[in-house]
Amino acid sequence: MKLAIAGKGGVGKTTLAGLLARSYAESGNRVLAIDADPDANLASSIGISPQQAASILPISKMKELAKERTGASEGYGSLFILNPKVDDLPERFFVNHKGVSLLVMGTVDQGGSGCVCPEHTLVRTLMKHLLLDRDDVLILDMEAGIEHLGRATAESVDALIVVVEAGQRSLQTAAQIEKLAADIGIRNVVYVASKMQSESDLEFVKKALPTKKFMGKISMSESIREADRLGVSAYDIGGEILAEIDVIKKNLEGFLREQGSVTQEAQHV
Amino acid sequence: MKLAIAGKGGVGKTTLAGLLARSYAESGNRVLAIDADPDANLASSIGISPQQAASILPISKMKELAKERTGASEGYGSLFILNPKVDDLPERFFVNHKGVSLLVMGTVDQGGSGCVCPEHTLVRTLMKHLLLDRDDVLILDMEAGIEHLGRATAESVDALIVVVEAGQRSLQTAAQIEKLAADIGIRNVVYVASKMQSESDLEFVKKALPTKKFMGKISMSESIREADRLGVSAYDIGGEILAEIDVIKKNLEGFLREQGSVTQEAQHV
Repeated sequence: MKLAIAGKGGVGKTTLAGLLARSYAESGNRVLAIDADPDANLASSIGISPQQAASILPISKMKELAKERTGASEGYGSLFILNPKVDDLPERFFVNHKGVSLLVMGTVDQGGSGCVCPEHTLVRTLMKHLLLDRDDVLILDMEAGIEHLGRATAESVDALIVVVEAGQRSLQTAAQIEKLAADIGIRNVVYVASKMQSESDLEFVKKALPTKKFMGKISMSESIREADRLGVSAYDIGGEILAEIDVIKKNLEGFLREQGSVTQEAQHV
Repeated sequence: MKLAIAGKGGVGKTTLAGLLARSYAESGNRVLAIDADPDANLASSIGISPQQAASILPISKMKELAKERTGASEGYGSLFILNPKVDDLPERFFVNHKGVSLLVMGTVDQGGSGCVCPEHTLVRTLMKHLLLDRDDVLILDMEAGIEHLGRATAESVDALIVVVEAGQRSLQTAAQIEKLAADIGIRNVVYVASKMQSESDLEFVKKALPTKKFMGKISMSESIREADRLGVSAYDIGGEILAEIDVIKKNLEGFLREQGSVTQEAQHV
């Protein structure tokens, strides 16, 4: 199953990505998490220390690998077509923590050096060709906003999870995301409410979204604030969010089964 | 004075940009606000209705204007060199609300249509050539994260205001922004703490930042949450944030005077 997580800046995309990654790993799934935000912080949300995170070679450095394996004239596409399994990729591109393997896209190393389009192209190609086993879960944490949909980075996901909070702006972004996702052929767009502080927050969000696509909520708890202060994973602090994540996983599974996407996924094996 | 506002997604960049724009306008300055986030929502933060905002022609549509005024072979640069004053630009690119003129960069109109690099180039060129009178204030609201610093969109600002909240991640982003800003020659990087819920939040942020560069704070008030729920400007709801904005303006003025940037600005006239 390939999932991407998108939404307005600061709604809690990375927190959700980290929680889902850790929770699927805990359930015995093999989890591959990809941080596709140049302002990367998925590592800390998974519980990976800054030192460990710094040791990961970003996907943007796979150029040499492509040359090595496919010949200098071939592009990344050939690399992943020839080497479509996660196990084909060298270990220096990963850090594994509690069953979650993290890859990072790469960032802006120098001011004025240009945009991160080449990095996005690489992630898109990797996503497209990567073959997963039935119980594997790939989680792609996108950058804030909508530009990644212009770049179609997540075009081959089974579901795009849009995170929203109780405000007009995140709902406007969500509507824009759903429209742009349809343009690039993403059929399954679903929603998770985040930073919920009260029942009225939840009502506000639910009223704005189709019930069928609503997968659940993450409450704004002191454990999430604490995790960000300390730079650790909210999963390790625990509390009610662990049960909330279970609900989201269950609803997502049900939704995708209904859409026939899980069956489709099984055919990849 | 040219200001840009940056920071991690969701820290409150657009809220601060809207508050500053309205406050400078209230003080009698001529204010030009530019929304340089493809996931645009500066309009609502200024208090401009969605209908009015939809009527603004984005800067990305200035291509025809460039052709018209400079001949087909010339680029945008020539357009702004020949027409360097705000008054030179046609009214269809603006909406004015309570003394604030809003321009928008442009967005991703279709999924898969590519990135917004051309739009950023245009904003960068406009920023560079725009001549302001002494009391004019230009406020550029950037996209979340750091990619705009790869594109050097804000290279010609007098100050880059980095918004931070009480968490490791927004401070990490801030450190990255300061480094990348130096690469493109932005000398004055200052900080504003946002979403402050307690004294300990404020202490947490202040401890991490150089005192001299700390311009003030915006408290997380019910008025800000309410403004986002209703899709209106926090400035119109008012409360303690109006006094907080005054402190930020005063500190910023003092900081820039000390750095000699205000004098430099006066020479533009």
